[in-house]
Order: sequence, then structure tokens, then C-alpha cells
Amino acid sequence: VGAASASAGAFPDSLCLVSLQYATTGCSLTLHHTEKPKHEAICEYRPYSCPCPGTSCDWEGSLEAVMSHLMHAHKSITTLQGEDIIFLATDINLPGAVDWVMMQSCFGHHFMLVLKKQEKCEGHQQFFATVLLIGTRKQAENFQYRLELHGSCHRLTWEASPCSIHDGVAVAIRSSNCLVFDTATAHLFADSGNLGINVTIS
Amino acid sequence: VGAASASAGAFPDSLCLVSLQYATTGCSLTLHHTEKPKHEAICEYRPYSCPCPGTSCDWEGSLEAVMSHLMHAHKSITTLQGEDIIFLATDINLPGAVDWVMMQSCFGHHFMLVLKKQEKCEGHQQFFATVLLIGTRKQAENFQYRLELHGSCHRLTWEASPCSIHDGVAVAIRSSNCLVFDTATAHLFADSGNLGINVTIS
Repeated sequence: VGAASASAGAFPDSLCLVSLQYATTGCSLTLHHTEKPKHEAICEYRPYSCPCPGTSCDWEGSLEAVMSHLMHAHKSITTLQGEDIIFLATDINLPGAVDWVMMQSCFGHHFMLVLKKQEKCEGHQQFFATVLLIGTRKQAENFQYRLELHGSCHRLTWEASPCSIHDGVAVAIRSSNCLVFDTATAHLFADSGNLGINVTIS
Repeated sequence: VGAASASAGAFPDSLCLVSLQYATTGCSLTLHHTEKPKHEAICEYRPYSCPCPGTSCDWEGSLEAVMSHLMHAHKSITTLQGEDIIFLATDINLPGAVDWVMMQSCFGHHFMLVLKKQEKCEGHQQFFATVLLIGTRKQAENFQYRLELHGSCHRLTWEASPCSIHDGVAVAIRSSNCLVFDTATAHLFADSGNLGINVTIS
């Protein structure tokens, strides 16, 4: 493939079709070489990366291997069973960029719940909460998730379809598939620095 | 009162009680002079200011006079009848700080709906949506409002008790009694630059 791309200049553009990096794992497309990088970034046959945010784990593998990777290499992640659970993020006042992660198991699938604190612009911290399916994009479309923060007199709710871990947390945040709130809102709902997020999958 | 405050240094502190600026409009409290400024900022007998955000109107008057002031001096504000209406903010991409205002009339009261676009930190615009009762703080406690943004596959909901216009929009935002969202989220729900917010009062 590398050779075909490198010599592309020698051919009329319309003839320069290349086969793709993930052909061996199942991708049967043949595309014009200019479309290759764009397609490979979203190709269903691309291997799955470790979905844990905030770690430098460079594991890659098949979808079927993701859960056993998480259970062996990231043992500290808690799993709760059920469609309706509470994701408790402790010490939300910890300084700097922080990630909170847990797993929710229901409907025969595992979902990864992520709360991410980031300073996108100086002095202004934001929280991003989202749900990812340990599954394909196609499977993710069949589910809805709801995140709910509630206090004695306020309630904030976000409903959407989960992203697949194939896209990952960064894509979920970039495409606004997440509940975004700032520090003041977090404090409104937190209790002694701990924030409980009700998560419902349907 | 001014004289009492000015000569306060001449008396033992415990003797220096002052009557208050709004005694003539009904406030019967007598406080230590150091507590006076703090109390006056929240005194129920303080006159009502014009509740319109983003204008330089310096009208003040009684609660009973607020609606007729709005109808005469701010004719451009639309009023919709009903508990469940759509607050349509047009051209949310207008640059800079912008306010959208409308009135909702139900349960024998008028509510002011405000959407405010601000750049709190450089390059990061935020939207703040809230509901204020044209009424006292006490009356406001009897109501709940819900703001809902929905698109084809996302929904964001905020529920709280309205602030009174006696506190105003700035206090509502400062105390996080508002739905806060950023430009990316606004675009997710906007249609051709117009953002429809479902408002339900109960």
C-alpha cells in the first residue's frame, strides 16, 4: 500500500486505487488513495484501542478482547449491574485534569461511564460526562442513556445515544455527545465534594 | 440614616442601631449599622428595578408597577400565554454578548424568560437560560420551571424554582439557578441559527 501511495504521481489519479490497512481483518473496500487516511480513522475493521481515558495504555485488540483486557490490566475499575445505577465521582475538587471511570452492565452489554474534568480555557474548568458502549457503532445506536444530577431543588438531565468505544471519549466530547457542566453547577449537586450521577440505560 | 452612620465612631458600637433606608416603604427592622448595607441589598421593601437584562433602563418602582412599566417602556417584548410554551431565540450566532427576553403568562402570574450569551472567559462563550417571576421571592418559591432543549437524538433538561425579579438575572446566574451550555451544545439543538427552548411552569 505504501508503494502504491508513494508512486501515485506517476499514474492518472483515477487509476490509483489502493487496498486498505485493515483488509486482513475484514475490510473489503478499495478506495482512491486520497480517501484512505480518512476512511481508516473510522473503519469498522480497525482494531479497538484500550478505552480507558487518562491512561497511557497502548493496548489494541479485537472487540471481543476488550473486556478481558480491562479486567486484567485495569482491575481498579468498578462494575455495577443494572439499568439504573449511581455513578459516584469522589473528590471532584481534586486540582487539574481528572477522569472518573466505571462500568455498568445491563442488557447483556457493558457500558463505560466517564466523567472528565478539563480546563479547556484558562481558569475555567468544565466537566464532561458520557457513556460509551463496549460494542460497535451499530450496536450503540440501539441504546439510549440518561445522566441525571439532582439536588434538593434543581435537576439537570441529559439524554442521548451512547458512542461506541471504537470512537472513544474524545470523539464523544468533540461531537457534544455528553453532559457538559461547569464547577459552579458541579458544586450545586455535590455533597462533601462527591458527585452522584444517576445513569439509566434503555 | 446617613448622619447616624457618619457619626457611628462616636458611640459604643453596641448602641449604634440605625433605622433603614426602606423604612418608609414598610421595613420595620432596626439593625446595627455594619449590617445595614448587606440587609438593604436583599430587603423585601427595596424598590423593584426594571428587570430587563441588557438595557440601561434605570426605572424603579413597586412590584405592582413592573408589568405596566414593561408594557409601556419595553413594548418589543413578546408575551405568550400558557404553562408550556416555546421560547424561540433567533440568530444565536450573533457576535458578542446578547440577551433574548420574552414573557410567559400563566397561573395568574407573569414570568420573564431570559437567554444570555456571555464570554466569561476569553474565546469561550456560554449561554445562560433562566426564568424569573414578576413577583416576590416568597411567591417564586411556589413555582417550578423546566427548560428543555431537544434535537433528534439528544435532550438536555433543567428544572429549578424561579428567582424573583427582585433578585434579578445576575443573581440567578451567579447562584447557578440557570441552564448553562456552551456554543457546541447550542449548535447541536439549533435549527438554522435559531434555538427553541421548551419552557414549562408548574
